[in-house]
Amino acid sequence: MLISKSFIPILKNNPSEAKIKSHQLMLRVGMIKQASAGIYSWLPLGFKVMKKIENIVRQEQDKIGAQEILMPTIQSSEIWKESGRYDDYGEEMLRIKDRQNREMLYGPTNEEQVTEIFRSSIKSYKSLPQLLYHIQWKFRDEIRPRFGIMRGREFYMKDAYSFDITDDDAFYSYNKFFLSYLRTFKRLSLTAIPMAADTGPIGGNLSHEFVILADTGESKIFTDKRIFELNCDNTKLDKSSLEQMRKMYEQYYAVTDEKFNKDDFEKIVNKENRLITKGIEVGHIFYFGDKYSKAMNTAVDLPGGKKDFVKMGSYGIGVSRLVGAIIEAKYDDKNEIMKWPLSVAPYDIGIIPMINKNDTSALEKANNIYLHLKKNNIDAIIDDTEENFSSKIKKMNLIGVPYQVIIGKKTEGDLLEFKEIGGETQNLFLDKIIKIITKQKASN
Amino acid sequence: MLISKSFIPILKNNPSEAKIKSHQLMLRVGMIKQASAGIYSWLPLGFKVMKKIENIVRQEQDKIGAQEILMPTIQSSEIWKESGRYDDYGEEMLRIKDRQNREMLYGPTNEEQVTEIFRSSIKSYKSLPQLLYHIQWKFRDEIRPRFGIMRGREFYMKDAYSFDITDDDAFYSYNKFFLSYLRTFKRLSLTAIPMAADTGPIGGNLSHEFVILADTGESKIFTDKRIFELNCDNTKLDKSSLEQMRKMYEQYYAVTDEKFNKDDFEKIVNKENRLITKGIEVGHIFYFGDKYSKAMNTAVDLPGGKKDFVKMGSYGIGVSRLVGAIIEAKYDDKNEIMKWPLSVAPYDIGIIPMINKNDTSALEKANNIYLHLKKNNIDAIIDDTEENFSSKIKKMNLIGVPYQVIIGKKTEGDLLEFKEIGGETQNLFLDKIIKIITKQKASN
Repeated sequence: MLISKSFIPILKNNPSEAKIKSHQLMLRVGMIKQASAGIYSWLPLGFKVMKKIENIVRQEQDKIGAQEILMPTIQSSEIWKESGRYDDYGEEMLRIKDRQNREMLYGPTNEEQVTEIFRSSIKSYKSLPQLLYHIQWKFRDEIRPRFGIMRGREFYMKDAYSFDITDDDAFYSYNKFFLSYLRTFKRLSLTAIPMAADTGPIGGNLSHEFVILADTGESKIFTDKRIFELNCDNTKLDKSSLEQMRKMYEQYYAVTDEKFNKDDFEKIVNKENRLITKGIEVGHIFYFGDKYSKAMNTAVDLPGGKKDFVKMGSYGIGVSRLVGAIIEAKYDDKNEIMKWPLSVAPYDIGIIPMINKNDTSALEKANNIYLHLKKNNIDAIIDDTEENFSSKIKKMNLIGVPYQVIIGKKTEGDLLEFKEIGGETQNLFLDKIIKIITKQKASN
Repeated sequence: MLISKSFIPILKNNPSEAKIKSHQLMLRVGMIKQASAGIYSWLPLGFKVMKKIENIVRQEQDKIGAQEILMPTIQSSEIWKESGRYDDYGEEMLRIKDRQNREMLYGPTNEEQVTEIFRSSIKSYKSLPQLLYHIQWKFRDEIRPRFGIMRGREFYMKDAYSFDITDDDAFYSYNKFFLSYLRTFKRLSLTAIPMAADTGPIGGNLSHEFVILADTGESKIFTDKRIFELNCDNTKLDKSSLEQMRKMYEQYYAVTDEKFNKDDFEKIVNKENRLITKGIEVGHIFYFGDKYSKAMNTAVDLPGGKKDFVKMGSYGIGVSRLVGAIIEAKYDDKNEIMKWPLSVAPYDIGIIPMINKNDTSALEKANNIYLHLKKNNIDAIIDDTEENFSSKIKKMNLIGVPYQVIIGKKTEGDLLEFKEIGGETQNLFLDKIIKIITKQKASN
């Protein structure tokens, strides 16, 4: 892709309306464009990053045996009246009347809808467990949409739902998602810690928020900092391994302000391990038993002939929000360098030829390198403008292209000036560069 | 995937509410479930097929140099007032008031929104052409939604938009999409013919509908049947090759009833070549020049310092509708055999072991075959229920699994009973089966 032909409308300066760095950067490099208050269009750069995040989320859902479906954005009010939430949700729910004057709504969440699908499809315990998920746009009519896509009105989420017959089975499902979340965030190079959380309008009594640290976060968090040293690398998908993982994480105090209790915190956590800081919620999981299945009469046949209401949990990840969250975590706004993890970077490598009107040899060389990279499944962008090196490198740093190759007058033969974003230049052959990037991509 | 664990709620009989065969089959095998009038949830089987269609559409857009973006579903009424279409669209447009009492709408199409994105981003002819596309949910509040997802209210579409400065350039863009559409439908094993069409509320004076033949189609079509013998295999992406392709197709009379003129038809087409039949519209492309750019003051700098309004076209493919259209074209409802093209089939192959309570050896064998296929990127489903062979094969035929392997008592060693859906059984080794399927997949 040539930068002159791509749709990447870069602004010279930070837009004044943006208060946090993810919002600034996303407008600055043309990842998004506001359509109306709290509603955004995703331009090619932002779209590519979001799509890569979505695919990682999807792969990790598939790995725990969840099946993908897709529920519509517009729902009927009837199922919400059945569950009793039609009145609970206030003005944040976008209510709509269609031409037949039916009460509809733009789904802010999907517990009712998925329960309705389940109850008309599954009749026996033999078909359980069922883990269903979808990735879809939602709408919450925030009174003060702000921070760009971090607190917008139309946003993209992965929602999963589990169906079991006993609490014990349901906790097993819960733990599978717990693991898949840790794995997902790890692949995004984020350290997300699971924290005991309130359940809010979803209901239930077991819930974890997954939070990443960021000064601009809206959640205040209180934790034993040793929780950051944990990982789930050895956890397997069986019941006891998952239970161990839960215990390992729950041995440390980690809560948001809603659950915070000063006395507990000071009693449980030694002074040197206490950490009070801010974070961004990127995932939230809930177990709420038969709250919806009872209200919506959703039962299955048990062995022996009885029936019982299914036990459900729900599991959300903010896909569009993650784009912003990664920027908050990885953007060095002082030096204007965005360090996207390679797994979600908009391009793998930037090719920066020195271009003069009278000499197109560097551009030809860039094109050849591009084709060679493409054959090796490496996605490159060429800056074919006539700007100078320093402004081209600044642009690549701002976009956040993890690797860069510079082709100048000094470039002779096949030895190229190569660098990692923000790093030092090395002279390498193209084959070596391909090896480095391919190895790095495979590790994710 | 084991069929007992999958979410495929199959009905014993055709649902009485469904009038056409795509609607019947999709409900019958649990591809979709109605959420409310004209609004559907996509269950795993339907979702998989739609996703595969979406990816083929995407790849063919990328191949002509179109860049993917994503515009939101909810739009502001302001841009529609600018273009003058806020009043033109009647009750089919779902109008919404948000909590601040702002007039919003669920986008039925995106000319205004993409023009707004373009005008705030691109200032010079140097950045042209620009081809932008997105794949997003749309809403049209049909007064009588019917035929399942074929004429639903919430539906999934690919919309593309082209921006150029001269008519000549714009026709070049138009022809690129023309080619990409022919290629897209070909990969879906559909013979779609481009027909001169009316432009309707989109506007402009050049337009083609892409129509596939089907008795249940809503469009009446009049054509010279020799158009079915044409193909675009030798067409290249350069200007003159594309012009030749257009001429080649336009040499034959082919129109829908809106453009039909009996005298012309009978004068131009010899009796033996006349074909009057019904079809389903699966794509529609438009050239409308500066209709929107003028109304929305969208101009770019020309060489020499002047400015001019950009010339635009728009290009739609109904992604969700294609699921139904393929069924209409490929489903033998008499014998209950659905012949999905392998490129979009929900699974590549079905493994059908004979299972008795006392003998699980066939299931074990099935599992081994499954793993071997998976290693070779072949997506299989095992019918692990205790039903008999004939009912299992019926189920695979209904779902539309293109290849099937039967593991019975007679199956000894590595020679397997293999058949193409609806075809004769052959005895083949697994490696040979893998070769057949892999070759078939690669040809798409």
